[in-house]
Amino acid sequence: MSARERLVVVGGVAAGLSAASQARRRRPDLDVVVLERGPSVAYGRCGLAYQLEAAGRSLEELVVSTPERLAAERDLDVRPDTEVIGLELARGRLWLRRPGGEGELGFDRLVLATGCRPLPPPWPGGALPGVFVLRTLEHARALQRYLPDRSLRRAVVVGGGHLGVELADVLAARGLRVSLLYRGPGLPAGYPPELSARVEAELARAGVELRPGVEVGALEGDSRVRQVVTAGGAIEADLVLVALGVQPEVTLGAAAGLRLGQSGAYEVDAGQRCSAPGVFAAGDCAEVFHLLQGRWVYLPRGTTANRQGRVAGANAAGADERAPGVVGTAVTRVCSLEVGHTGLDEHAARAAGFDPRVAFVEAHTRGRAYPGGREIAVRLVFDGPGGRVLGAHLVGGEGVAGRLGVLAAALAAGFDVDRLAGLDLAYSPPVAPAWDPLLVAAQAAQRLRAGG
Amino acid sequence: MSARERLVVVGGVAAGLSAASQARRRRPDLDVVVLERGPSVAYGRCGLAYQLEAAGRSLEELVVSTPERLAAERDLDVRPDTEVIGLELARGRLWLRRPGGEGELGFDRLVLATGCRPLPPPWPGGALPGVFVLRTLEHARALQRYLPDRSLRRAVVVGGGHLGVELADVLAARGLRVSLLYRGPGLPAGYPPELSARVEAELARAGVELRPGVEVGALEGDSRVRQVVTAGGAIEADLVLVALGVQPEVTLGAAAGLRLGQSGAYEVDAGQRCSAPGVFAAGDCAEVFHLLQGRWVYLPRGTTANRQGRVAGANAAGADERAPGVVGTAVTRVCSLEVGHTGLDEHAARAAGFDPRVAFVEAHTRGRAYPGGREIAVRLVFDGPGGRVLGAHLVGGEGVAGRLGVLAAALAAGFDVDRLAGLDLAYSPPVAPAWDPLLVAAQAAQRLRAGG
Repeated sequence: MSARERLVVVGGVAAGLSAASQARRRRPDLDVVVLERGPSVAYGRCGLAYQLEAAGRSLEELVVSTPERLAAERDLDVRPDTEVIGLELARGRLWLRRPGGEGELGFDRLVLATGCRPLPPPWPGGALPGVFVLRTLEHARALQRYLPDRSLRRAVVVGGGHLGVELADVLAARGLRVSLLYRGPGLPAGYPPELSARVEAELARAGVELRPGVEVGALEGDSRVRQVVTAGGAIEADLVLVALGVQPEVTLGAAAGLRLGQSGAYEVDAGQRCSAPGVFAAGDCAEVFHLLQGRWVYLPRGTTANRQGRVAGANAAGADERAPGVVGTAVTRVCSLEVGHTGLDEHAARAAGFDPRVAFVEAHTRGRAYPGGREIAVRLVFDGPGGRVLGAHLVGGEGVAGRLGVLAAALAAGFDVDRLAGLDLAYSPPVAPAWDPLLVAAQAAQRLRAGG
Repeated sequence: MSARERLVVVGGVAAGLSAASQARRRRPDLDVVVLERGPSVAYGRCGLAYQLEAAGRSLEELVVSTPERLAAERDLDVRPDTEVIGLELARGRLWLRRPGGEGELGFDRLVLATGCRPLPPPWPGGALPGVFVLRTLEHARALQRYLPDRSLRRAVVVGGGHLGVELADVLAARGLRVSLLYRGPGLPAGYPPELSARVEAELARAGVELRPGVEVGALEGDSRVRQVVTAGGAIEADLVLVALGVQPEVTLGAAAGLRLGQSGAYEVDAGQRCSAPGVFAAGDCAEVFHLLQGRWVYLPRGTTANRQGRVAGANAAGADERAPGVVGTAVTRVCSLEVGHTGLDEHAARAAGFDPRVAFVEAHTRGRAYPGGREIAVRLVFDGPGGRVLGAHLVGGEGVAGRLGVLAAALAAGFDVDRLAGLDLAYSPPVAPAWDPLLVAAQAAQRLRAGG
């Protein structure tokens, strides 16, 4: 072991590099080593699908930094193509595999930022060429190499989550005939019908064929995939994108005896500490505290990964920071719609002990007379007896992200519908209406509570 | 007096019609009369300037309703062109002047929603044809009749508040050569230099000549205005728009003995009650409670007028509602920029007993690699010792209104910069960046507090 104290971060990208950078900022004397399994260490993962929507857009634009620049600018020792294959906590040692062979590395503090992995296609034929998942920059590169083939006509996307919907949108924009197979009924998954209907109509307008309730049996092909076999018949496919969700990558720590939470991700405290001293976990491999559910859950997000990474890095450098917990905000874009949610839907609300009610409103994003405004739908969930705001789904042509932010603040503050209705929001006809859609929704909730 | 109990609302538009509608909803038996001095009773006042920016856009699009429709749809007796010239509180009587002559009207409850009036041009020549203020639909109609004259070349706008800036933008868009005369240094008035500079550059790009620090001495002309005389020389002007601010219209109530607050607007309580029983005031003629200053102030806004109107109407109908108070949010659009603020600047913060600090950041509104994002500048004011968020100015190409909403919620909740930094805001590259500009600003504030 070197004379300098050493922090090893396993995994680059959001959580890992946030941790390494934060530790370096706090402890210039620390030896900070980042080990990344893949060749790319710093890129914007959430932009992968969108970067494919136009043939001319380069994935390289997502690359934020390189090992050379991270060494020069932040004094970080970042090692790509380096897989950690073993961890011995008691002796503070890691076993590594890299192109040149295997090796060992000692650590004094350890941050696990191993992320998550996409669920692989569980069907026969899942390994055929032309079958893709999309999680890493390398996945995106493989897909981008495949896409220009002029013989490609039909794509099948399997999975109705945010990523599946994004991929269907993106592939249709690339000129492919796209079928989207999803469990349903909601699209994106978990969205209530008033909002799903808008997303479905938007995708249908973009030429996406929607196939809810279709279960895949097998993928078939020859030198590449040719069709998706379902109970209802075969669907031709020159390209299959599998977006069934992710699971936390915890193999390394679980084998070493680190405790996992109920969700299967690493159990951590608010300081990102794992069950062994000096070991931290952050990002998509770790649980996060849900402020409304009042418990630890698995909710992988880039924003959470950044934030948990910073806390893990700070605390690995001797600080005592706490990650703030989440309310579960997410947003995506589907063609010309912004689609997002925050907080709890009524099922999660009931499970968390609330007695949820729902207010649904349709409103306009700007002053009525001003050109360029769009429609927006707000479905607000609140606690009937106490009036507390619990969550919302929003679908609209613009302004969804900002309004989700207002709701995220209201949820974090524990506002009831009266306090939401009383917010002093911005108004000017070119940018927002006098009665903001959120206020209209809060007033509808007030009326429901008053029984009128 | 009629057998039915009568509520009279003096003044239509936002506050007055909100009050009348709310009273009607609560008390179907009430006789509800709305007296409006002008010919138009229900229109979107904040859209007046923008509606003039393109010759083809009609002011009629701002008209929300008519006396006939309000009678049919809401059972309201709305009387345009009816000026109230006298009020006797003890006997519950109003003296009216209308086209047919004068008259009297008794009331049991009274809501004063008389709004505000623009400060008139205080210089010689202020009454020349071609000199305008813009507050009512009739002002806008007069201006719209004047604008198509092909001999118009040069316009001078006097006043650097939100309205002055809007008008300079709008008149430049109509093809006029526009000079904007304002006290300065900030533009809009009160904006700090880091943000003013952006607004000034944007107006200059649109061809507006900026003249800070210029005082008007007189307006001169013949059959119409021809020039604006200043200490620095005369400026040719075929059109002069005077936007020096507004004052509350309280003549009626003040003469009848109603108490005014320090600001000169009607003193009210949270239920919009004036100093005499059964009398309420709402909107731009009344004060409003500022949640951060902890006192009653004059801050006329369409959003506040709507909300105070509802409370006044509900309480005039026997309820006991409370208006929520404000944090002082305002937004406008200047060419392609959204410009807004909320809460306190450092001067107001100091006056309110805080020890303010400022964090300034420039950031991007979407994921870096995603096309279409814009720059945004956030200037966050917070209390140094306690860390409480006190206010912010924002200027950016998009997403200002939504972020002002997030801040308005944070201000209403009393968040400190740590809680702001911890908000679970929406992220997806096409709509918002991983580190939202508000979070970047909050982190900058955290670093300032940590002394780093």
